[in-house]
Amino acid sequence: MKRRIVMIGCGVVGQGFLQILVDKKELLKEKYDFEPVLVGVADMMKGSILHNDGMDIEAFLKHVEETGNVHEFPAEGATIGLNSVQTIREAEADIMVEVTYTDIKTGEPATTHVKEALNKEMSVATTNKGPATLHFKELCDLASKKCALFKYEGVVMSGTPIFDLLDYCLAGNDVLEVKGILNGTTNFMLDKMETENMSYDDALALAQKLGYAEADPTADVEGFDALAKVVILSNVVLGGNIRPEDAERTGISGITIEMVQQAKAEGKRYKLIGSTKLVDGKIVASVKPVKLPLSDPLAGVGGAINALTFKTDLSGDITIQGPGAGKIETGFAIMIDVLNIHRELQ
Amino acid sequence: MKRRIVMIGCGVVGQGFLQILVDKKELLKEKYDFEPVLVGVADMMKGSILHNDGMDIEAFLKHVEETGNVHEFPAEGATIGLNSVQTIREAEADIMVEVTYTDIKTGEPATTHVKEALNKEMSVATTNKGPATLHFKELCDLASKKCALFKYEGVVMSGTPIFDLLDYCLAGNDVLEVKGILNGTTNFMLDKMETENMSYDDALALAQKLGYAEADPTADVEGFDALAKVVILSNVVLGGNIRPEDAERTGISGITIEMVQQAKAEGKRYKLIGSTKLVDGKIVASVKPVKLPLSDPLAGVGGAINALTFKTDLSGDITIQGPGAGKIETGFAIMIDVLNIHRELQ
Repeated sequence: MKRRIVMIGCGVVGQGFLQILVDKKELLKEKYDFEPVLVGVADMMKGSILHNDGMDIEAFLKHVEETGNVHEFPAEGATIGLNSVQTIREAEADIMVEVTYTDIKTGEPATTHVKEALNKEMSVATTNKGPATLHFKELCDLASKKCALFKYEGVVMSGTPIFDLLDYCLAGNDVLEVKGILNGTTNFMLDKMETENMSYDDALALAQKLGYAEADPTADVEGFDALAKVVILSNVVLGGNIRPEDAERTGISGITIEMVQQAKAEGKRYKLIGSTKLVDGKIVASVKPVKLPLSDPLAGVGGAINALTFKTDLSGDITIQGPGAGKIETGFAIMIDVLNIHRELQ
Repeated sequence: MKRRIVMIGCGVVGQGFLQILVDKKELLKEKYDFEPVLVGVADMMKGSILHNDGMDIEAFLKHVEETGNVHEFPAEGATIGLNSVQTIREAEADIMVEVTYTDIKTGEPATTHVKEALNKEMSVATTNKGPATLHFKELCDLASKKCALFKYEGVVMSGTPIFDLLDYCLAGNDVLEVKGILNGTTNFMLDKMETENMSYDDALALAQKLGYAEADPTADVEGFDALAKVVILSNVVLGGNIRPEDAERTGISGITIEMVQQAKAEGKRYKLIGSTKLVDGKIVASVKPVKLPLSDPLAGVGGAINALTFKTDLSGDITIQGPGAGKIETGFAIMIDVLNIHRELQ
C-alpha cells in the first residue's frame, strides 16, 4: 500500500530516514506492504520542493547529498519556493515527518508544523523534542480528534525504542517509576574518569574531540539535555504535566576524579541519573549524579550508551539500553514511527 | 469489545493471567476496549469446565485457589468432564491460551492443542516452549492460512518482551546476532561465586534453597534450559531451522571459584551466554560460559535476571533485561499476547 509522506527538515536525521527507505525498500514492501511516496520536502536552509505525483527517493537523496540543496532537484512539474507551512498545506500526504532542529524554549517552528499536519488529518512522526516537551497533551488531543496518530519514538534515546516498548510490549502495566542514563556524553566522561583515571577536564576534552560533546558542553554536563528527556518521560509515561523548572537538576561538573575513584573503592559507580516517579499523585523528577551499587542494571551501562529502567507492577523492572544518537539510529526512529502509523491505519 | 477465551492448563501461569484480568479489568476495558469472556478451562490435574455463556473470572479464580479444582466451579449449565481437545473443539472462543507443562522432547500435548485451535481459526497465546521449539514454521504457516495469530512472547524471558520488541519496535532491522543470559539460576550462582566468594556447591545449594534451582539442577547448570531458548531464537528471529543437537552446549558445572576469581582479577566476569548468529547463511548457535569484559552490557546483569542483546543493522546493539520467571510476570506474557491479538484482530 502506498503511503504519501511530506518531510519538514532535511538534515542528518531526515537523510538517515530516506537512506533507510532506499536500503530497505524491498523488505518494507514485501513484509509490511509499505510503499513510501515522497511528495514534498522543506528545509529552512536547503529550500523546498513539492510534487504530489511523488519523487524518486534514491535520486532525491543523492541530489541532496551532492548539492546540499532541495529545491534544485530535477522533477518536472514540481513546485518550489514554498515555506514549510505552505508545503504541509499543499502536500497531499498521509504522514508528515518533522525532523527540524529542536528549540526547547519555544518548541517552534516544529509545534506549528505538527498542528498544521494534524489539522489536515495527517499523522505525524517526529524526533523533535519541542512539541512533546511543551505541548504533549494538546497535540495528543488534537490527533485523537482528527483520527490521526502522533508518534515521537526518537525524542528520547533516538533509535532505542521506549515509547513503543510501553505501548506495544508492556501495555497493561502501571509504570511506577522511570530512571535512566539519558545523556551519552556525560556517561562516556564518567566512564573514562573511572576506568582510565582521567580528570574531568581531560574526559571533557576527549568527548569534544570525538564529537560527543559540543564546544559549549553546558547542555550535556549541566544536565539540561537529560532534563528535557525527564520532563517528556514524566508527562508522556506518568501522565504528568510538569515543565523543566519543576525538576531538580545537578550536572556532573562538580564530580572530581577523587569522588569517582572513592566510589569505585566502595564498589559503587557514579552515573548521571534522570528519574521520575509519582509520589502521592505528584511527579517527583530529577537529574543528578548518583552513586549506584554495581548490582544496579544501570551501573553496567558504559560508554556513550543510553539506558532506561521502567519499574512496573506486572513485569517487574524492565531495562532497555542502546544508542542514544546517530544518523541511521535516529533515522530508524522515524522509520518505525512511520511504519507503525502505516500498520495502525490499515 | 468482548473477546472469548478458552484456557488449557490452569497452573501458576494460567492463574497469574486470570489474576491480571481481574486486577486490570477497568484499565483493559477503558483504554483498550478489551473485555475478556472466559468460556472454558481444562487442566490435566484439576479437571475441566465449559460454559459458552462465559464464567465470572474473579469467582472462578477464587474457586481454583481455594479448592485446587476446576470442574466443581458452580456455573449452571456448564459442561464438565471434557478432555482438553474436546474443550477446545466445543469452545466458542476467539483465543486459546495454552499454559500446560512443557515437554521439550515431544512438544505434546501443547502442539496438538495449538493445532486444534488454529484449525478452528482461533488465535493462540502460549508460554509453552514445546510448540515453538519443535514446530515453529508449521504453526506459523497454519496460523497464516487460517487468518489467526500465533503468539508466544512468554516462551523466552517470560514477561520481558523480546518477540514483540522485534515485531513492533525494531521492525525493518536485520538482526545479525542474538546473545544473552537466558537462565536466571546459573546467573544467580555465578554472581554469588564472584561477589560472595561462594563455592559452586554452596551457590547451588543456596539457589535450591531459594527455589531458583530444582532438586535435580541438570537442566539449569548443564545449559539445557538456555539451549531450548537459543534454538527458539535461532528459528524465530534468524529464520533458521535447527534442533537442540545442532548447537554447542557447555554448562557451568566445570566453573570453579578459582576461575571466577581469576576472571575478576582480570577485570572480567563469567556469564553463561546463549548466542546465535548467521555465518554464511548457516546458524551457529551455542550455550557456554564466557569471560566477558565488564564493558559488555551483559556483564552487568546480576542475580536471577535475564537479558538479551540484539545486534541490528539499523538500531545498533539493543539490550533488554528483566525477569525471566514469576507467576505474575509470566501471566503478563500471556496477557500482552492476548491484548495484541485483540488489537490486531480489530
